[in-house]
Amino acid sequence: MDADFPGRVRDTLADYLAGRQEECARLDPGFAEAAGELRRFVLGGGKRIRPTFAWWAWQAAGGDPDGPEADAVLRAASALELIQGCALVHDDLIDESDTRRGNPTVHRRFSDAHDEKGWRGGSGQFGMSAAVLLGDLALAWADDMLHASGLPTDSLQRAMRPWRAMRTEMLAGQYLDVFSQVRGDESAEAALQVAELKSASYTVARPLQLGAEIAGADEATLAALESFGHDVGVAFQLRDDLLGVFGDPEVTGKPAGDDLREGKRTLLIAEALEAARAQNDERAIRRLRSVLGDPDAGEEEIDAARAVLRRLDAVTAVEHRISKLTTSAISTLRSVELAEPAATRLGDLAVAVTDRTH
Amino acid sequence: MDADFPGRVRDTLADYLAGRQEECARLDPGFAEAAGELRRFVLGGGKRIRPTFAWWAWQAAGGDPDGPEADAVLRAASALELIQGCALVHDDLIDESDTRRGNPTVHRRFSDAHDEKGWRGGSGQFGMSAAVLLGDLALAWADDMLHASGLPTDSLQRAMRPWRAMRTEMLAGQYLDVFSQVRGDESAEAALQVAELKSASYTVARPLQLGAEIAGADEATLAALESFGHDVGVAFQLRDDLLGVFGDPEVTGKPAGDDLREGKRTLLIAEALEAARAQNDERAIRRLRSVLGDPDAGEEEIDAARAVLRRLDAVTAVEHRISKLTTSAISTLRSVELAEPAATRLGDLAVAVTDRTH
Repeated sequence: MDADFPGRVRDTLADYLAGRQEECARLDPGFAEAAGELRRFVLGGGKRIRPTFAWWAWQAAGGDPDGPEADAVLRAASALELIQGCALVHDDLIDESDTRRGNPTVHRRFSDAHDEKGWRGGSGQFGMSAAVLLGDLALAWADDMLHASGLPTDSLQRAMRPWRAMRTEMLAGQYLDVFSQVRGDESAEAALQVAELKSASYTVARPLQLGAEIAGADEATLAALESFGHDVGVAFQLRDDLLGVFGDPEVTGKPAGDDLREGKRTLLIAEALEAARAQNDERAIRRLRSVLGDPDAGEEEIDAARAVLRRLDAVTAVEHRISKLTTSAISTLRSVELAEPAATRLGDLAVAVTDRTH
Repeated sequence: MDADFPGRVRDTLADYLAGRQEECARLDPGFAEAAGELRRFVLGGGKRIRPTFAWWAWQAAGGDPDGPEADAVLRAASALELIQGCALVHDDLIDESDTRRGNPTVHRRFSDAHDEKGWRGGSGQFGMSAAVLLGDLALAWADDMLHASGLPTDSLQRAMRPWRAMRTEMLAGQYLDVFSQVRGDESAEAALQVAELKSASYTVARPLQLGAEIAGADEATLAALESFGHDVGVAFQLRDDLLGVFGDPEVTGKPAGDDLREGKRTLLIAEALEAARAQNDERAIRRLRSVLGDPDAGEEEIDAARAVLRRLDAVTAVEHRISKLTTSAISTLRSVELAEPAATRLGDLAVAVTDRTH
């Protein structure tokens, strides 16, 4: 089961969603069609990072991939992708994003259908309504999938601790992301807070804890995985920040420099602005501000902003921090007794997600 | 505990939300403030109908209100109000409603704060974002509250069946409500489908089933409660339809005839239009259409539409149907062995919710 784990997650989700799809069809064909859009979205892609962390943490804490519980654990881990489905559908709506992974976002699919069919009322309002409800459906189904995973009662009981925390942390991260944006809070502190919640906790530490709790890990293992997860999660976010500005569009699937045009408040930008302020470099601040949040910023302006980020040593500083976090993560991993090959795979994963190109 | 049950539900929710509020405060004060708006909304009012049905069904199926499980059942039943919190917050957003129970809706609270503080970006987009995320939070917390209710494992396991179905049915009902609106589907069939999902299943039958499953009810009891719940739920919706057009604003808290101005597709309207069509009464159809969905319709036009509804016998027909459904519900209730005084209370509830003035 370890080979092509993301593929196994996708198959598990496909199985689960096929059952729910039948249930929806029994309720109403129009609703089944709408739910089909959620299915398409969830099965359509994604790196399945969260289930992968949960899976290897479960094995690292003693879970047996050839044992009788493996299928239940796979289902429980895959349920994380439904939380993520809710997060992305609602996030795209909040960010007014038109595309994700090269395809129209869910709210756009529905507003486009509304436009095509010439239905009544505003197409934007309809797209928003459908996306709100389908995100809710993903969130409700995530819980259902976890509870129907077939985990033994005591494992499930322990799993509730990270499960409970992670959904609240994900929503707190999303809210603070929006809130710091509207308040114009450009501090590194605010950006770090969002990264802690959305990336460190929700994306890495809680999925690791979920897997470890299912396996019945002891407190030392849980603490080590939390520390490891935190480091990897922040490093993951920092890599994301760099890719959003310097990533190759052919590899990331997003237009180059899109994070700048969107005015995304990242740690990279926050630290660059702080460095510029410390150096009284008004010109650098102006250059950055002129592109931040300007959807029409041209390639040349984006390039100039990139040069400023390099010149302020923000890129070097972030790269340095990523490698420090990754090193610290790996050494935490080595400080506890974990089963192999899972421990090695977790180390590889830490490197892969912090050193990726997409 | 039976006396002032809605008050007990409110206290139980207040307890639970106080704990979550502390958790949010540990994450971030800004997020805690936002979560406080959800808390205010959930505690701010509501008839607590769903927990009440669950509570009496539990007792009717043998649950002991003085027994050791009563507190856990109260918590599990109260969790229904958090699902409803999500439903209302998202519904108000979808319907672009400015007020609920005389107070600004959640998205309005946040967009008003945005306007007052002069924050960046659009205040409407911010209000929408906050309402989406707080509705999600309510939905996630509903699950958490159920699973932390302290119900014995086997009761909880059985409770998952209605719990799983009801959230999907609620969302299906919301979606179809929006969908029939944009497609201009005025059929009684579409209105009935929405009433079946939102009122019959989500509001009455599933909460009853939840309580009965917790008590370990047999199949005959579950089937009787489902049939009873279905009848009461549809009758409840029909009463709602009548109140939305003929209700006393001083009692309902909503402007008189608001459902007409909103163009709400109710069974009442659908049946009136079908009756008018059957009688080739073009004038009646024109009169109804002229106010339906016209926010500026004056008191005289609303009165004329009311007269049309009466003349077409739509009101009599709906009243007749309500009393038939209520009678059928009561007789179903008498057909099975249920514990007292719960059976009597369920019968009283059926009458109360279908014969109410607000």
